[in-house]
Amino acid sequence: MTEYPTALGASSRDTITLLGRDLAADVMGEVGFGELAFWLATQRRPEPGETRVFEAVLAALADHGFTPTAIVTRLTYLSAPDSIQGALAAGLLGGGSRFLGVTEDCGRFLHAVLSEVDAPPADDAGWDALALRTVRERREAGLLVPGLGHHVHKDGDPRTDRLFRIAEAEGRFGPHLALFAAIGRVHPQVLGRTLPLNGAGVCGAALADLGLPLELLRGFALLARTAGLIGQLAEELRNPVANEIFLSVDLNNRPVPPEPYRPEP
Amino acid sequence: MTEYPTALGASSRDTITLLGRDLAADVMGEVGFGELAFWLATQRRPEPGETRVFEAVLAALADHGFTPTAIVTRLTYLSAPDSIQGALAAGLLGGGSRFLGVTEDCGRFLHAVLSEVDAPPADDAGWDALALRTVRERREAGLLVPGLGHHVHKDGDPRTDRLFRIAEAEGRFGPHLALFAAIGRVHPQVLGRTLPLNGAGVCGAALADLGLPLELLRGFALLARTAGLIGQLAEELRNPVANEIFLSVDLNNRPVPPEPYRPEP
Amino acid sequence: MTEYPTALGASSRDTITLLGRDLAADVMGEVGFGELAFWLATQRRPEPGETRVFEAVLAALADHGFTPTAIVTRLTYLSAPDSIQGALAAGLLGGGSRFLGVTEDCGRFLHAVLSEVDAPPADDAGWDALALRTVRERREAGLLVPGLGHHVHKDGDPRTDRLFRIAEAEGRFGPHLALFAAIGRVHPQVLGRTLPLNGAGVCGAALADLGLPLELLRGFALLARTAGLIGQLAEELRNPVANEIFLSVDLNNRPVPPEPYRPEP
Amino acid sequence: MTEYPTALGASSRDTITLLGRDLAADVMGEVGFGELAFWLATQRRPEPGETRVFEAVLAALADHGFTPTAIVTRLTYLSAPDSIQGALAAGLLGGGSRFLGVTEDCGRFLHAVLSEVDAPPADDAGWDALALRTVRERREAGLLVPGLGHHVHKDGDPRTDRLFRIAEAEGRFGPHLALFAAIGRVHPQVLGRTLPLNGAGVCGAALADLGLPLELLRGFALLARTAGLIGQLAEELRNPVANEIFLSVDLNNRPVPPEPYRPEP
Repeated sequence: MTEYPTALGASSRDTITLLGRDLAADVMGEVGFGELAFWLATQRRPEPGETRVFEAVLAALADHGFTPTAIVTRLTYLSAPDSIQGALAAGLLGGGSRFLGVTEDCGRFLHAVLSEVDAPPADDAGWDALALRTVRERREAGLLVPGLGHHVHKDGDPRTDRLFRIAEAEGRFGPHLALFAAIGRVHPQVLGRTLPLNGAGVCGAALADLGLPLELLRGFALLARTAGLIGQLAEELRNPVANEIFLSVDLNNRPVPPEPYRPEP
Repeated sequence: MTEYPTALGASSRDTITLLGRDLAADVMGEVGFGELAFWLATQRRPEPGETRVFEAVLAALADHGFTPTAIVTRLTYLSAPDSIQGALAAGLLGGGSRFLGVTEDCGRFLHAVLSEVDAPPADDAGWDALALRTVRERREAGLLVPGLGHHVHKDGDPRTDRLFRIAEAEGRFGPHLALFAAIGRVHPQVLGRTLPLNGAGVCGAALADLGLPLELLRGFALLARTAGLIGQLAEELRNPVANEIFLSVDLNNRPVPPEPYRPEP
Repeated sequence: MTEYPTALGASSRDTITLLGRDLAADVMGEVGFGELAFWLATQRRPEPGETRVFEAVLAALADHGFTPTAIVTRLTYLSAPDSIQGALAAGLLGGGSRFLGVTEDCGRFLHAVLSEVDAPPADDAGWDALALRTVRERREAGLLVPGLGHHVHKDGDPRTDRLFRIAEAEGRFGPHLALFAAIGRVHPQVLGRTLPLNGAGVCGAALADLGLPLELLRGFALLARTAGLIGQLAEELRNPVANEIFLSVDLNNRPVPPEPYRPEP
Repeated sequence: MTEYPTALGASSRDTITLLGRDLAADVMGEVGFGELAFWLATQRRPEPGETRVFEAVLAALADHGFTPTAIVTRLTYLSAPDSIQGALAAGLLGGGSRFLGVTEDCGRFLHAVLSEVDAPPADDAGWDALALRTVRERREAGLLVPGLGHHVHKDGDPRTDRLFRIAEAEGRFGPHLALFAAIGRVHPQVLGRTLPLNGAGVCGAALADLGLPLELLRGFALLARTAGLIGQLAEELRNPVANEIFLSVDLNNRPVPPEPYRPEP
């Protein structure tokens, strides 16, 4: 008979365990929600400093106002108010490469660079040299540097410095954040202009330094966003705007004749 | 021009605010993730005792092992590994009336009973009388009492007592929990046997006592489950079982002839 | 060993069957897509007249322009262009009680009325009497009549007459359509004004007359809409509007102070 | 005021148009569902032969039995029976790179090869030469050839020959199918063994030859699968297996101790 091993939730008639602990006695009331999410993802309990950095990242990513994901959740609730789960799921489905993906892309990119050096640099000069080489290679390959640039916060994203400082204070400023900071210092030499290190990018660097699985960095952004989308729904219930949004599009539709599609040869 | 008011995330060139606070200075590093989720849903910052009860509820609901939602997330990841958001969204879509709905049903049910009494009872005897009347009415109407009974924890769900005690310790044992506890005491007089108060039900009672929006109680169960599903994906990445599950079904399919559907008259 | 019986797809090394037929020889090239969808849902092959009515229903429901579902699919594609499946799924999640649900609600409602009469009426006078009684009962119960009324087509929904005529021409004008038509004739006597029979409602009546499972009527609306949403994506790829929609909301956000939520007592 | 142009659905008080046609008069009852789906995606009405090939593709992809997507839809319905849209959406979310992606990958791959030659070859010998070069280049790059190989139909996928013949009969055997067929003839010379051309691959080639947008090839597989998933739900309603599947996993869970995650350096 096939068996399915798991270290997550399990229960018998009298007990429920989670991650090998007694859920009622040792987890409920003892473990914060951010701490638990970290623990579930890594199967190791984070230290308080790790939890603080992790929760700072979740706070940074929870809600960015009327993003496509927020609009989608509100419109889906308007259309199918019987299914909260559908409204949340629809919003999360916008968490792809463009709007929520920078966190994952940046974490993976920094990790890839680091995995190709024998040892991390010993000082800022070393980090700057590595960053300079990296930015040059991206530029020569015609590729953007993940985490660099922001369409609104052109003079600096306030989340970035704050997360650097929190990570430092908690002793969690590791090689991913160090490389990211160095990219912030040296990229003007290569690109000829100064771009901000954005908040989504620094979150990816911090999550990577916490030792979280790179394949799931987008998942943490989605967890943060779930809390944000519940906030959007709560506000929609009290001060609805989704119908106005829908009408603003529908009433301004302009019928045009069909244009037969011809594929490029 | 239509405007869309919101008290959630907003940003200008230099600042980002969330719930009227400076996100970087006042939220990141200062607010835990459970606390933030509560704040987003209610637009008021919870007190520490409220946060502790809320996070205990999230812990109770985060992961229950190989539930349909967990299996769905793992199978969807197997089938579409390029889209973490799709795997999480698919899992959440199972958070409907049957598996995650008890929390919401129980909170709404208790609230409906309470909204029909002039004032909450003053003592246990009063609660017991109200509970007795309520259970009798449900029984006479042929309806189950939400939150009563569990297919595994037949002698008592360990989460229930624990959450009662945490809520008491934090001064958050309000009328919903009081009524739920009374139902636990009196129902054998009506039903002729003793059923456990289940964990999903007590979570709904506790969330209602925290003053969270009843329409969104299912949403908090989904938030908890998002953390659990990330844990399921993390485990799937390291110790995959989804392909085994898929094969255990597919290899045991048994072709049968079509059976033309005839609707009931 | 548990076995899982199915009359749907099955395959061995050399053959693939679907619904008990040889997929390659007897289905591909021989069975239209609407016909196949009907067959899959009922495990019986529809007659040509049934297929024509069914496909007319699907055409009626495929696309209604910039509905919330269409906007949601476009916004999700904007945000996560790497996942076509996510954009389609997000759009379908709006197919709930409000925008796509009328089809199902109307079919179920008509069926419930019919299941309480001993035999269907023999003539129009009999149908009118039944319809009159039904509309009166709904009105007295303070309930709307599903399928009655339309916010745009106030003088009549052109799909309704057309579907009546197609069903008649194909000999598929059964009791659900007959009752629906009679409601259209008699409701002014009860309500004091003339409302149109809407297209979503007549589609539900027609699907019920075709003997399709009532529990899945919404599913056929979703199938039709899937084709429509692919059309929306195809247009979005060539003439994108999603970013404009997003900006029209985001640039018109108006920050307001948080308003602490207080539940009703 | 921003306007949103569209050639899809539009309506006024008295009329509804779709693709510039009168929906009631010219589409309902006149246009089959497969034909309509093609029309919506390309904004041009297909000829009957194109529709036949297109519908043959949809038939080939509609249902493959107990795939992960089918299992997911059934489990989600078990867990949230109140939301048909959620069950279908969850199933579609499995339509990603692994299980439904071959259709898209193959169509794109063939198109990329064709777009690099000045003119398509004039005869079979020319096609074989192009195919040989292509398979060699893939092999040297360590890449698989999309559409080649099948884990069950090792001696040939019956859908492939059938679709070749339907396309030929309808005069729709274009360069993508020609190249795919040539790959089937020549690959043993390079790979040293004979692999079948699989059904998902030939569907991608046929869709590309029909001039459908390459970016949406996966979308057509999802449309076909929507019909299949409705079939799965219809069968689940009558002969449920989802609870058995769930229990077969849950009852065979084996608790193991947590294993702290350590990222690779």
